[in-house]
Amino acid sequence: MSLAADITDTFEELRDTVARLHSELTRYELVIWTAGNVSARVPGHDLMVIKPSGVSYDELSADTMVVTDLHGEVVRGDLAPSSDTAAHAYVYRHMPEVGGVVHTHSTYATAWAARGEPIPCVLTMIADEFGGEIPVGPFALIGDDSIGRGIVETLRSSRSPAVLMRNHGPFTVGRTAKDAVKAAVMVEDVARTVHIASALGKPEPLSEEDIDRLYARYQNVYGQQGEK
Amino acid sequence: MSLAADITDTFEELRDTVARLHSELTRYELVIWTAGNVSARVPGHDLMVIKPSGVSYDELSADTMVVTDLHGEVVRGDLAPSSDTAAHAYVYRHMPEVGGVVHTHSTYATAWAARGEPIPCVLTMIADEFGGEIPVGPFALIGDDSIGRGIVETLRSSRSPAVLMRNHGPFTVGRTAKDAVKAAVMVEDVARTVHIASALGKPEPLSEEDIDRLYARYQNVYGQQGEK
Amino acid sequence: MSLAADITDTFEELRDTVARLHSELTRYELVIWTAGNVSARVPGHDLMVIKPSGVSYDELSADTMVVTDLHGEVVRGDLAPSSDTAAHAYVYRHMPEVGGVVHTHSTYATAWAARGEPIPCVLTMIADEFGGEIPVGPFALIGDDSIGRGIVETLRSSRSPAVLMRNHGPFTVGRTAKDAVKAAVMVEDVARTVHIASALGKPEPLSEEDIDRLYARYQNVYGQQGEK
Amino acid sequence: MSLAADITDTFEELRDTVARLHSELTRYELVIWTAGNVSARVPGHDLMVIKPSGVSYDELSADTMVVTDLHGEVVRGDLAPSSDTAAHAYVYRHMPEVGGVVHTHSTYATAWAARGEPIPCVLTMIADEFGGEIPVGPFALIGDDSIGRGIVETLRSSRSPAVLMRNHGPFTVGRTAKDAVKAAVMVEDVARTVHIASALGKPEPLSEEDIDRLYARYQNVYGQQGEK
Repeated sequence: MSLAADITDTFEELRDTVARLHSELTRYELVIWTAGNVSARVPGHDLMVIKPSGVSYDELSADTMVVTDLHGEVVRGDLAPSSDTAAHAYVYRHMPEVGGVVHTHSTYATAWAARGEPIPCVLTMIADEFGGEIPVGPFALIGDDSIGRGIVETLRSSRSPAVLMRNHGPFTVGRTAKDAVKAAVMVEDVARTVHIASALGKPEPLSEEDIDRLYARYQNVYGQQGEK
Repeated sequence: MSLAADITDTFEELRDTVARLHSELTRYELVIWTAGNVSARVPGHDLMVIKPSGVSYDELSADTMVVTDLHGEVVRGDLAPSSDTAAHAYVYRHMPEVGGVVHTHSTYATAWAARGEPIPCVLTMIADEFGGEIPVGPFALIGDDSIGRGIVETLRSSRSPAVLMRNHGPFTVGRTAKDAVKAAVMVEDVARTVHIASALGKPEPLSEEDIDRLYARYQNVYGQQGEK
Repeated sequence: MSLAADITDTFEELRDTVARLHSELTRYELVIWTAGNVSARVPGHDLMVIKPSGVSYDELSADTMVVTDLHGEVVRGDLAPSSDTAAHAYVYRHMPEVGGVVHTHSTYATAWAARGEPIPCVLTMIADEFGGEIPVGPFALIGDDSIGRGIVETLRSSRSPAVLMRNHGPFTVGRTAKDAVKAAVMVEDVARTVHIASALGKPEPLSEEDIDRLYARYQNVYGQQGEK
Repeated sequence: MSLAADITDTFEELRDTVARLHSELTRYELVIWTAGNVSARVPGHDLMVIKPSGVSYDELSADTMVVTDLHGEVVRGDLAPSSDTAAHAYVYRHMPEVGGVVHTHSTYATAWAARGEPIPCVLTMIADEFGGEIPVGPFALIGDDSIGRGIVETLRSSRSPAVLMRNHGPFTVGRTAKDAVKAAVMVEDVARTVHIASALGKPEPLSEEDIDRLYARYQNVYGQQGEK
C-alpha cells in the first residue's frame, strides 16, 4: 500500500507520457492500425507502463495504459497489455540503463530487416545517433523470450539504440521512452534515405575515425544543457 | 413493412459505420478522388450497405449510403450504388462468413497486381494477418459477375483476406466491414514494405511451419478478449 | 458595361470555384510552393479565370483570381496572372470543348516526362479515365505559343485528357475545371503505380479491345446520373 | 543601448519570421524531430537570428529564437543556438548578398549527397530555380569552419542556391530567409523527381542554351512585380 502511495504520481505521469508518445509514431507514419507500441520503465521499481493490445492510437489515453511487472504480469489497468510485452520486459530485465522501448514495423527499416541487411553508416546523422551501422537481430518467434533475447544480444555488441529484427521490424531503446521514440523516428528516416541512395549506386561510407568523432560530439554536445 | 421496422436500427447503425470507415481509406491514402469503396452485409438479411457511386469522401454520411439486395438492386437510398456493387454482392452471395468487403486501387498493392505477382510471405506481419502469400486473382472486366467470381475463387484457395485482382487492384474481406478495412490497410502496408525490400535484393521467406504458428497465434490471441 | 452585368455572377462563382479547386492540388501533394495552377473558361465568353502568379495556395481566394481574355490579357483582377497563362489560353482558343485546364509538376508524372516516356495502359483505371496510354508532348520553352501548341497537338491524337510535357510536367484538360483537376490527380496516381510496378518487372498491358470496352463504360455509366 | 533601441523592431519581426518559416520545413516533410534549421541575417548589422538547438518544431516561437553575432556568439536569447550555427555564420560572413540560410536532411537531396552525385538539370523547374545542376560540396566535420567553407566554395562556382554537402545533407541560401526556405523545398522536390526518373532510365538533359533562357526569364519575370 505504501509502495502504491509512493509511486502513484510517477504512474500517472508515466502513463500520460507513454500514451502521448504514441502520437509521434502516427505523426511520422511509423505505424498503421494498432501495429506498434511504446513502453517506459517505472523509475526505481521493477515495473513498466505499456500500450494495451489491439487498441487504436486515437483511443489511447493515460487511463488505457497498462502497468506490468518486468515479467509482463499486469499490475494495474483493465486491458490486456501489448502482445510484445514479453520482449519489452526482457529488455528491461537485462539492460538496466534502458528506460524506454519502442517497437514498430516502419516501412524502410522493416525492408532492411526483411533482407537481413544492416544499414551502413553513410550519413553524418547515422554516426551522430547510432554510432555506426544499424545491426540486424535474429529471426525469432513471438511467445517466449526469443525476441527479447535477440534484441539484447544484438544491442550489446553495438552502440546503436536500434536493432532490425529479421523478417519482423525495428526495436529501439533509450534512456527514456522519449529517447527510444526519437531513435524509432530516426531509424526509419535513415533507413529510407540510405535505401534511396543505394537504389541508384553505392553511397560512400564514413571512416571509423569520423564516425567516432561525430558520435562523441553528438552524444555530449548537442541540444540544450542538461537535456538531450 | 414489419421487416423494415425490424431492421431500421441496424440499417442506421450500419450506414453510419460504413460511411465512417471510408475515412480510414483516406487516412491511410489508399484512395484518391472517389476510387474506392466499403460495404457491409446487413446481418440476418440478404441485404448490404455500400458507398454511392462517384461521391467524394468528404460528402459521405449515413444518409448518402445505399442499401441494396445481394444482386445489387437498390432497396433504400437516393443515389446509385458504387459501380463495384456487383462484385461486392457476388462475394456476399457466395461467402456467407463474410460481413464486409473493401475495394481500393492502393498504390503498392495495385503495382503487384499490375505485374500479376503474389506478395511473398517474408514478414511476420504477413504471416499474422494473411497466413501466407497474398494471391493474385484473374483479369476480369466490370459489367457482369466476372470480378466477383474471380475474387471468390481466389480467396477460397487461400487463408488470405486479400486478393490482388490483375491489372486492377486489391479486394479484401472480413468478418465485419472494419476487419475488411483493416485488411485493406495492411495489404497496402506489406505490399509497400516487400516492394521496397525487393528493390535492393531478395527478402528471406518464412518457413511454412513458422507461418502456421504465427497465423494461429495472431488469429486466436491478439487484441483484447472478445474482439480482434 | 452591359456585358459585365450579364456575367458578374458567373465570374464570382467561377473565381470561387477555381480558387477552391487549388486545394485539391495541395491535398494530393501535386504541387509545392506556388508551382501549379488551375483555370476555367467563362462559359459563353472568350474569357478565362486563372491563378495569379507566385501567390501561395494558402492565400488564394475568389478575389485574388485573375480574369483574362483568351490571349492572356488581364480583364479583371489586381495581380499578374500565372506565368503559364499563355499555354492555358492557347488550349481554350483551339479546343472549344475544353472548359478547364490544370498544370502541375507532380512527381511521378514529371518523372515519366523527364524520360520522355508515355505511361502504358496497364491498369483498368488508366483505360477508364485515359482511354489508352498517356502521351508525351514536345519539349517547349515558355514565352510564346510553343507549350500551348504542343499540348493541343498531342491531345488531339489521343483520347487522354492528360499530356506529359517533356522535361516539364503534366497538363490536363476537362469539360470543367473540376474534371481537369480530377485528371491531374489521376495522372499522378497512375504514374506512381505504373512506375512502382515497372521497378520490379514488366506490368502486363491490357488489350485494345478491353481498353475500348472499359473506356466506353466509364465515360457513359460511372457516377450519378447527370454528372461525371 | 542605442543600437538595441534602433533594431528592436527588426529583431522581433525577424525572430517571428524565422520561427514561422520552420513550419514550411515540417509541412513539406523536410525535417524530422529537431534535425533542420532556418536563419536570417539582421539587415544592416553583423547579427543573425537562428533556431535554438534540440528544440522541437511545435515549441518554436519568436521568443525561443536566438540572436548571435556572425561568429555564433549569443547576443540575445535564453537557449543555445543550433549546432549548425557556425556554418550559417560563415556563410553570412563570406556571402554579403545572402540574407537567409536553411539546412535540412531532406530524404532525396540527402540521398544524392550520400552518393556524392550532383542533381542533373533535366527539368525546366531546375533550370528556373537553380540555373543548372545542383552541386555537391565536400565532406566536412562539424566543429570548426569546414562546413561553412565547403558551402561557400561550392556555391561560388555555381548559380545554384543549394549545395548537397557530401554524406550530410542540403544547405540552401537566399536573398531572404523565405527565399532560402523556397530553395530547400524545391531542392527536395527536384531531387525526388530526378531520382524517380532515373530509376527506370536516363532523363534527357536540357541544353545549356535552354537552361540559360529559362533561368534568365524565371529570375526576372516570374511572380508579382516587385517580389519574387
